[in-house]
Amino acid sequence: MTGKQGVAPLDSLRFAEPLASQLRFLLEADRLKSVVRGNRIADGSRRENTAEHSWHIALFALVLAPHAVEQVDVLRVVSMLQIHDLVEIDSGDTLLYDAAGAAMQAAREEVAARRLFGLLPAGQASEFLALWQEFEAAATADARFAKSVDRLQPILLNHAAGGGTWTDYEVDEARERALTGRIAEGSPALWSAAEKVIEDAVRRGWLKPA
Amino acid sequence: MTGKQGVAPLDSLRFAEPLASQLRFLLEADRLKSVVRGNRIADGSRRENTAEHSWHIALFALVLAPHAVEQVDVLRVVSMLQIHDLVEIDSGDTLLYDAAGAAMQAAREEVAARRLFGLLPAGQASEFLALWQEFEAAATADARFAKSVDRLQPILLNHAAGGGTWTDYEVDEARERALTGRIAEGSPALWSAAEKVIEDAVRRGWLKPA
Repeated sequence: MTGKQGVAPLDSLRFAEPLASQLRFLLEADRLKSVVRGNRIADGSRRENTAEHSWHIALFALVLAPHAVEQVDVLRVVSMLQIHDLVEIDSGDTLLYDAAGAAMQAAREEVAARRLFGLLPAGQASEFLALWQEFEAAATADARFAKSVDRLQPILLNHAAGGGTWTDYEVDEARERALTGRIAEGSPALWSAAEKVIEDAVRRGWLKPA
Repeated sequence: MTGKQGVAPLDSLRFAEPLASQLRFLLEADRLKSVVRGNRIADGSRRENTAEHSWHIALFALVLAPHAVEQVDVLRVVSMLQIHDLVEIDSGDTLLYDAAGAAMQAAREEVAARRLFGLLPAGQASEFLALWQEFEAAATADARFAKSVDRLQPILLNHAAGGGTWTDYEVDEARERALTGRIAEGSPALWSAAEKVIEDAVRRGWLKPA
């Protein structure tokens, strides 16, 4: 999956370090715009890509930070959300409802993270890798809140799009609650909002009753 | 331009404030994914949308902040970049090379900013509007650095895509330098890199000689 690279012409310019490594990483990151997710954008017109998803949830974090259950460092949360899905450049998006895929995913993503963040100068490489691992482990308040908005956004998009992946994959309410309930760990207020949306989706026939 | 809204079903859930306003804003922001820019993504396969552009330049800011000419507040820079183009939901993208469009743009964008940020609760509405105005005015170190990465990214994408908007609009080197030279105000190091890319683009025939 590390085949096509758009960066060859830039390499020929032989920038000095650390800029050479930083620009190579930033151009490689561009490929996230071509990773397509399961869910659609809010108007239902097409599927969302992971780059614009990352922008959207970073905006969620900026706006919704006051609802975090513990005070968070917003720059750390936004930084995590900007980089948390870069691994999908190598490993692809795994749908939330794909349990078999999820089991394979963790190992593949760790390899991808080391390759991608390894493009950066050493100091930034270890900083970004640590931030990504912190997000994955969800062991800090910042990471738990970042996970909350990452889970909340597709619920709102499915609802706005009139069913989205819920109807595509015939998801039922119990499964949806099990997969998104961790929103509560970062923000009980946002989980309470998500529950209202889920209940409404059941009423509208977009989620099957439990 | 304020016609189609995807948010009607969510409004019916009657969330309490401030969450109701925040979620309405975040769903309205989703429309930025449908605003298409002039330039292509790095592999040249399609044009870039403004949401994924915003993600990309926020990542630029996280990685390239050490090159800012004055120390910057990275959270403020990233926040500006996340929201700076939301006005395009109402006013559309104006191509850098469209001088006539640019003159009309400022007035239209001020109206759009007041409508869009006005969807937020009062405190966040004035905070985001002020941040957007600060970016537009480029009167602070944070705004000047944010402008630098916003101008640098399309240069790298045009180069990666093998000409991009430079060949589409038959841009010459002098015009390109005039339109992007302000990169130097935020970061002489990044402007020096941009100049190397521009010189290479002239050599490759993607920019016409001055």
